[in-house]
Amino acid sequence: MDRTRLEAFSDGVFAVAITLLALNLVVEGPGRLHPTLPHQLWEHRWSFAAYLISFFMIGIIWVNHHVLIRSIALVDRLLLFLNLVLLLFVVLIPFATATVAQYLPVDDEDTRVAMALYCAVFLGMSVGFSSIFEWTLHGDHRFEPLPPQTHWAARLRFVGGSGVYVVALVVALFNAYAAFVLIALVAVYYIAQHTPSSPAEPRGPDDAGETEVHQ
Amino acid sequence: MDRTRLEAFSDGVFAVAITLLALNLVVEGPGRLHPTLPHQLWEHRWSFAAYLISFFMIGIIWVNHHVLIRSIALVDRLLLFLNLVLLLFVVLIPFATATVAQYLPVDDEDTRVAMALYCAVFLGMSVGFSSIFEWTLHGDHRFEPLPPQTHWAARLRFVGGSGVYVVALVVALFNAYAAFVLIALVAVYYIAQHTPSSPAEPRGPDDAGETEVHQ
Amino acid sequence: MDRTRLEAFSDGVFAVAITLLALNLVVEGPGRLHPTLPHQLWEHRWSFAAYLISFFMIGIIWVNHHVLIRSIALVDRLLLFLNLVLLLFVVLIPFATATVAQYLPVDDEDTRVAMALYCAVFLGMSVGFSSIFEWTLHGDHRFEPLPPQTHWAARLRFVGGSGVYVVALVVALFNAYAAFVLIALVAVYYIAQHTPSSPAEPRGPDDAGETEVHQ
Amino acid sequence: MDRTRLEAFSDGVFAVAITLLALNLVVEGPGRLHPTLPHQLWEHRWSFAAYLISFFMIGIIWVNHHVLIRSIALVDRLLLFLNLVLLLFVVLIPFATATVAQYLPVDDEDTRVAMALYCAVFLGMSVGFSSIFEWTLHGDHRFEPLPPQTHWAARLRFVGGSGVYVVALVVALFNAYAAFVLIALVAVYYIAQHTPSSPAEPRGPDDAGETEVHQ
Repeated sequence: MDRTRLEAFSDGVFAVAITLLALNLVVEGPGRLHPTLPHQLWEHRWSFAAYLISFFMIGIIWVNHHVLIRSIALVDRLLLFLNLVLLLFVVLIPFATATVAQYLPVDDEDTRVAMALYCAVFLGMSVGFSSIFEWTLHGDHRFEPLPPQTHWAARLRFVGGSGVYVVALVVALFNAYAAFVLIALVAVYYIAQHTPSSPAEPRGPDDAGETEVHQ
Repeated sequence: MDRTRLEAFSDGVFAVAITLLALNLVVEGPGRLHPTLPHQLWEHRWSFAAYLISFFMIGIIWVNHHVLIRSIALVDRLLLFLNLVLLLFVVLIPFATATVAQYLPVDDEDTRVAMALYCAVFLGMSVGFSSIFEWTLHGDHRFEPLPPQTHWAARLRFVGGSGVYVVALVVALFNAYAAFVLIALVAVYYIAQHTPSSPAEPRGPDDAGETEVHQ
Repeated sequence: MDRTRLEAFSDGVFAVAITLLALNLVVEGPGRLHPTLPHQLWEHRWSFAAYLISFFMIGIIWVNHHVLIRSIALVDRLLLFLNLVLLLFVVLIPFATATVAQYLPVDDEDTRVAMALYCAVFLGMSVGFSSIFEWTLHGDHRFEPLPPQTHWAARLRFVGGSGVYVVALVVALFNAYAAFVLIALVAVYYIAQHTPSSPAEPRGPDDAGETEVHQ
Repeated sequence: MDRTRLEAFSDGVFAVAITLLALNLVVEGPGRLHPTLPHQLWEHRWSFAAYLISFFMIGIIWVNHHVLIRSIALVDRLLLFLNLVLLLFVVLIPFATATVAQYLPVDDEDTRVAMALYCAVFLGMSVGFSSIFEWTLHGDHRFEPLPPQTHWAARLRFVGGSGVYVVALVVALFNAYAAFVLIALVAVYYIAQHTPSSPAEPRGPDDAGETEVHQ
């Protein structure tokens, strides 16, 4: 069993993708030809909002990836390729973020296309993630196999997760800003749901290390 | 024996190179001077196709690198430099991908040159990979040395792998699109061949961890 | 307990962010239209100064992150998200550095805004760092919990650290260059304070490995 | 003792810096306004040569860093900051490479300045590396301290290494191409010197893992 390089490579891709997000943030130099810096920063407000949301979305994917991969007892080539499919969409997030940030200032047909693209990338990522989860349900892939009767409930939750992105994609075709808010709410939901409300409460050493999520 | 940093550095390069692929995907901002976004995305269809193929090619190289390095019992400086030669070509993949994506929309002499360059980078990568494999055949470099009578069969397979890229390079000089399809088929072949068809079948713990590939 | 991936992901982000700093350093090609290279390098003197300061600031954050995370006994999801908040600002450092380097050559209102932005990013980073430290004070989060009577002294030091960036931010609104010097002094202070003055003196093996910093 | 994160962070920086080298390789799109692709590739011959040399220089630094850090028994903050100084120059290599590649096609005063800058970055890197080596000579910093009588011989070799870059820098001020060849020879020398000539010869398991270099 060797999850080390799977994790190292994935962490590398997550780290580079999350850092490249900020490459979209560029202001023009000083001079009479350019607006003042506060004006430019205000013009880039959608870029900053998109940066913020995409940053936490990649962060959430990374946290969930972390938890899911830790439950895996063996690594086979199918898992490696499913993981590649997930990363294929993670790597597209900076591109989709840059595109949506460019088109949000204008509110036209292209804005809706850009937002649908943004949602589609998250949908692809979600499907990739779900396929890794599906893989864990079979054979001896997990350290502690989930009881079969819980499989459909777990799948339903994953389908639900992907379903939100389908909804956001459809909403985007009518109102890009509503879809943007929906994606932001997904990020807030994931952060709020899985973060213990009273982190200060003492825990025993038997509880150390992680809070199980996907069970 | 310390494969850790060899793997960490290589994984870093693979991760950065695979993520930089998406830097080629850029759309122009909104405004009358630019085509509509769907039109732009359609104009970039070759960029997306090249992104897809190069992404999986780097992913496949990473998976094979993963398996090959795991079979290695000792790391010497020659291995480190052979690995650098492999990475030299991996790092060139984003450049070759960007170049071929730029020239695929026009179908002229330059398109064929760009595709030949793309194939040449994969050929160089393949030769680098084969040289690492050759290195493993000697001395005590592997945990479980391959029986000498299998060496030539194994080499033949590697030469065959490089041979496909030579064929693709020659094809590219006549028809860039045929060579592109050939490279795509190589990617599909590698993914299909090494992925178990029934991943759900139970495995014993003695089978855990990896499917041996290069034997 | 599994700090490995938290560290791997964070190290990846730190490494990419610190390397992207140098992407801002670009000279124009040769030709009559461009100034001579020495002239260009002199024109970029603020870019080099900003590169130098930001490089060491990210380096210092990385060193302190290294020491703080090593004191942590368990990783929960709240810690992962607090760490994401820290990284959110680390990733913004190349953008803030590029912006401030662009506006330092002119000395006007925009220069002060750019410098305030630069200070604000470090302030955000400092607040993120402090919140991780606050997290370590509760429950069984540390291997060796700090005695409660030392908590407020430790917090005061962290508030002091963030306070310096607040002061720099306010100073920036009046004199960008004074704020720049202040940030540079913070970097020099952190490097000087925590670096043993006589590194050559022998140490026993029981002292090996790290000098505790945050106690 | 915890070298893990020092190595992980350094490997990340090396991996990003070596991959960013290829970002300088860009060809212009098709169309009548642009030269043919073969013509463009020929015009970029200095970029490819500079890419090749810088790639192997970073690779060599990484290999030597690998060997030197493995000999270290404890990590203190001074080492972390000396390592940052080394990385400060490693991160500048893509910038220096891009600059020298831009100016090599013309042969004027600026070409010599660009080449001197290129050599100066390697000199800075070499001084950073030597300072880490100097650090290892003191206290209990190494697993197996070098006998004191060998210190000056070892230092002399490091001063010699830095001396080559000083010579290259001076040569650059008179003839950029001669300095370029000198740097290339340094790379070839390091690769040839430390690579065993007969890699195929069997080794015992007691010899596994590394060939000591800095003794």
